[in-house]
Amino acid sequence: MRILERYFPILEWGKAYNGQTLTSDVVAALIVTVMLVPQSLAYAMLAGLPPEIGLYASILPLLAYAIFGTSRTMSVGPVALLALMTAVAAGRVAEAGTPEYIAAALALAFLSGAILLVMGILRLGFLANFLSHPVVSSFVTASGILIAVSQLRHILGVEASGHNLPGILTSIVGHISDINLPTVGIGIAALALLYGLRFATKPFLKRMGLPATLAGVISKTGPVLVVLAGILIVQVCGLHERGVRIVGEIPRGLPPISVPEFDLTLWRRLLESAALIAVIGFVESIAIAQTLAAKRRQRIEPDQELIGLGMSNLAAGFSGGFPVTGGFARSAVNFDAGAATPTAGAFTALGLALATQFLTPFLFYLPQAVLAATIIVAVISLIDLRTLCQAWGYSKTDFLAMTTTIVVTLAFGVELGVSTGVGLSILLHLYNTSRPHFAFVGQVPGTQHFRNVNRHAVVVPEHILTIRVDESLYFANARFLEDTVYNVLASRPDLKHLILMCPAVNRIDMSGLESLEAINERLMEAGVTLHLSEVKGPVMDGLRRTHFLEALSGQVFLHQYEAMETLAPDCAHAATAGTAVTTQPQAEPCPSQTIAGVKRQGGR
Amino acid sequence: MRILERYFPILEWGKAYNGQTLTSDVVAALIVTVMLVPQSLAYAMLAGLPPEIGLYASILPLLAYAIFGTSRTMSVGPVALLALMTAVAAGRVAEAGTPEYIAAALALAFLSGAILLVMGILRLGFLANFLSHPVVSSFVTASGILIAVSQLRHILGVEASGHNLPGILTSIVGHISDINLPTVGIGIAALALLYGLRFATKPFLKRMGLPATLAGVISKTGPVLVVLAGILIVQVCGLHERGVRIVGEIPRGLPPISVPEFDLTLWRRLLESAALIAVIGFVESIAIAQTLAAKRRQRIEPDQELIGLGMSNLAAGFSGGFPVTGGFARSAVNFDAGAATPTAGAFTALGLALATQFLTPFLFYLPQAVLAATIIVAVISLIDLRTLCQAWGYSKTDFLAMTTTIVVTLAFGVELGVSTGVGLSILLHLYNTSRPHFAFVGQVPGTQHFRNVNRHAVVVPEHILTIRVDESLYFANARFLEDTVYNVLASRPDLKHLILMCPAVNRIDMSGLESLEAINERLMEAGVTLHLSEVKGPVMDGLRRTHFLEALSGQVFLHQYEAMETLAPDCAHAATAGTAVTTQPQAEPCPSQTIAGVKRQGGR
Repeated sequence: MRILERYFPILEWGKAYNGQTLTSDVVAALIVTVMLVPQSLAYAMLAGLPPEIGLYASILPLLAYAIFGTSRTMSVGPVALLALMTAVAAGRVAEAGTPEYIAAALALAFLSGAILLVMGILRLGFLANFLSHPVVSSFVTASGILIAVSQLRHILGVEASGHNLPGILTSIVGHISDINLPTVGIGIAALALLYGLRFATKPFLKRMGLPATLAGVISKTGPVLVVLAGILIVQVCGLHERGVRIVGEIPRGLPPISVPEFDLTLWRRLLESAALIAVIGFVESIAIAQTLAAKRRQRIEPDQELIGLGMSNLAAGFSGGFPVTGGFARSAVNFDAGAATPTAGAFTALGLALATQFLTPFLFYLPQAVLAATIIVAVISLIDLRTLCQAWGYSKTDFLAMTTTIVVTLAFGVELGVSTGVGLSILLHLYNTSRPHFAFVGQVPGTQHFRNVNRHAVVVPEHILTIRVDESLYFANARFLEDTVYNVLASRPDLKHLILMCPAVNRIDMSGLESLEAINERLMEAGVTLHLSEVKGPVMDGLRRTHFLEALSGQVFLHQYEAMETLAPDCAHAATAGTAVTTQPQAEPCPSQTIAGVKRQGGR
Repeated sequence: MRILERYFPILEWGKAYNGQTLTSDVVAALIVTVMLVPQSLAYAMLAGLPPEIGLYASILPLLAYAIFGTSRTMSVGPVALLALMTAVAAGRVAEAGTPEYIAAALALAFLSGAILLVMGILRLGFLANFLSHPVVSSFVTASGILIAVSQLRHILGVEASGHNLPGILTSIVGHISDINLPTVGIGIAALALLYGLRFATKPFLKRMGLPATLAGVISKTGPVLVVLAGILIVQVCGLHERGVRIVGEIPRGLPPISVPEFDLTLWRRLLESAALIAVIGFVESIAIAQTLAAKRRQRIEPDQELIGLGMSNLAAGFSGGFPVTGGFARSAVNFDAGAATPTAGAFTALGLALATQFLTPFLFYLPQAVLAATIIVAVISLIDLRTLCQAWGYSKTDFLAMTTTIVVTLAFGVELGVSTGVGLSILLHLYNTSRPHFAFVGQVPGTQHFRNVNRHAVVVPEHILTIRVDESLYFANARFLEDTVYNVLASRPDLKHLILMCPAVNRIDMSGLESLEAINERLMEAGVTLHLSEVKGPVMDGLRRTHFLEALSGQVFLHQYEAMETLAPDCAHAATAGTAVTTQPQAEPCPSQTIAGVKRQGGR
């Protein structure tokens, strides 16, 4: 039973279902439905697909997520980012508007669903951790800019294409003479109205006496008013006969249930894109789900989320949809509107099903410029330059990864952008750990603590050098440790004992072990004894399984102070008592010294 | 002047050149020449190239390395591993034996030379660190097996092809009926002689009164005797008329100096392979150079080595050769024979030049089976299964990366093998650091030290929990830290203070910072104060540049004991005095407790 509950979260929350939760869910579903109808049309347009595909992607996938997902409030469905990625991937194998293009979008949903499901079953949710948050945020920012710019063509009423900034801009400029003035008028009016509603509705409703949350929720449904206004104006003034592009006829009825065509050649060409869509969709939605869950002290199971989103996308693939995931704005509205369980999502699906049945004739005159305006307003809120500024001040490495992601995404498109960002952040991390920090340490007088000689006034006995290794030893930095030790050896002919202090060494791999063996041997030849101190339990467990400890010329000390007490007892005791002289290297009886000769830049 | 010396090491060692170094160099060069003539013919055959290409690759490249290389004793030239990789890469764009195939080998030398040179100028020598030594050793082992098996066809006198173990074996079995008995006789005799000479010569010469080193050096020139015997037998018995394949006519004269054809299409197809050849060649030769240099306390500059090897390969590309690098056996002989400076390499080049001029007619009857036998004997010494066994006992992660490298190399060829190995070792490293170890720590009675509650009898005050974070915080593990803290929070409703003890945190990137901010906020909401202790200098410097320290609900303590003295002074002093009770959680006045409730598996 418990394993069933793990894979079917509905069994858990279903038990507590009652009239009150039902009411909350129905209210939330109503509001989200009003929001989702124009969104699903708009994102289908962004993906280069007929409007009904967007509606289809908002029915069965929501039901699937209600059964398998662990977030109680996330609203699954089409989102701008995945719509853009779908357009890029499908555009590579077919011309937009052709049946092959629609089949490719369907295959993408099916493949990314399968990938997510397999990842969930194999419990690979942790893989999402390798997408660093700054990189994802930069990717979303750059994609937001790309999407907003790409929608300018609908606002201007020109034909244009391209999947990167230079391409889109050149294409728009190339068609600038085709500008359709009625379209521009509608587009700009829609943008102005949407922004106006966004900033004016909430204060207005609050002044009318509505509670803040409710006012906020209602103000988010503003787009539906703009949609209605757009339909009315076009229909009344007959603007569609004056070049204003409209949504046109949408087939009535429920989504067609069909098995995706088994086309191995197509699948192979789409596989990489589908994997990217799956991973990006997962990373985005898990962040949303966790943010919302935390507010109500609920738990999200990443591996079960993979299954939930996987089933959603499979459902999209089997019912004429395209890739879906959790949408940020929609989920926030669902949450604020009081959704208590995933049933709210199921009711939203019902709402959308009714819309495809009865609402589609009314959407005939909906101008595309209005949809483009809702997309632009939605994606501009995704643009986040604050994190970029923060990174500039805090970590140049992150800043480099972020700007590269933004530039590559804008210049070469989303797929190369996100791959570059992920690859670069891994490379930069490895580069940082491949040149780890080593500190020469001495005893802080009056204590048993040891600190960097370059940062603190410390006591260092003669003939003994302690190097604190500030990184796990693994293949990328093993040779660097050897080099450091050998350079020290060359510059300190008086040396008799070398202590490697390892409180920050969390792991020693084979390469690290080989380096330690080589260091031990080389030091022995030079008449220097090698000791270790403060080796962590599991690292020590590993070393015990090798011959290294037998070959080690010196000892392993549990604490650095023990090492000092053993190797230079007079000095250690004097330092602990605070009587050792720290600034005059020649002072007796404990001839402490500062090791200026091996001082390094930027000591810690 | 100093910058000139850096780029032209010849200016440094040239100053001390005298009669004695000259004599040493000439003697070493003579011995290496005798060794290199059959080797260069054999490796050209292994690469699927005409024999003279091997000789050409052993002239100018050696001169170039003598000028630009930093190793005084390494012997550059054709090696088995790069010959195999050349065969794989060139075989992908042309049929062996065609002029296009030879052009491809030339282009590979040129491209890998250019890549090495650029890497050297950009000082990217550190990139070689990302090839973990165990993975490289596995790759070399698997390649050795592949090469040895591929040479069986020459021993058996059959036609066969393939670049992976199943391919080669099927191909040999398919042609098994074509076996040429005289060839088999020569091949087996050559193998037996080579092994016999290898193990018998040195003890014999030592018994004759020669010093051990000299005896070792002379025994390494054994192959030349086998070559001579092979030539004699074929010529006297006319075996080439009975199906024994011979080297045949080698064009006389010096290498043709020519500019590689500018063929961008070809270059693009070979670029990836050339990069692999460059990196593998560099990693192999730098290991050899450093081993030899260490014995004489000389220094190797990795970045200058890149330039040296780059110029060598460019020279090969401009003089009808194929990719070269430092050879292990040959370098060891050069070293043992007393080579004092890179001039020994220059003299070897002179020896090879003389050989192409005067020796080639005598090599006409040299049977290919003898060359195959010398290759087999050479590569079998590369096979190293000891490291694999060591890894099994020490690190399952390394073992997994190593076996995968071996299996993929054998099953799918060298290029996929080495790429898989490198990719996997990076992934496994990231995986390990993405689920870092966190320990709950307490004070060791009678000291001011803090240790894992699961490994030591320690004192832990009420309402306070200290988590020692055993890893740098970066994007791959930031969320894992959050999860750990939130789980603790859920299981410890009595908690008032949470201390993150950070002696092993060497770096906090943007994602880690965001996680800390989120943890601080979440703990504040729950009424728990967050403190940090033992934060390293540079990490603290970074945090000071952010708003985190202002937002932090608690304090940052230099040492964990300070934290305890501040937050639970009675308990800390009792523990230091050794009077605290560690086993009875209810004991007063210091209500210490063991935190069984949050005990984790496999604690450190």
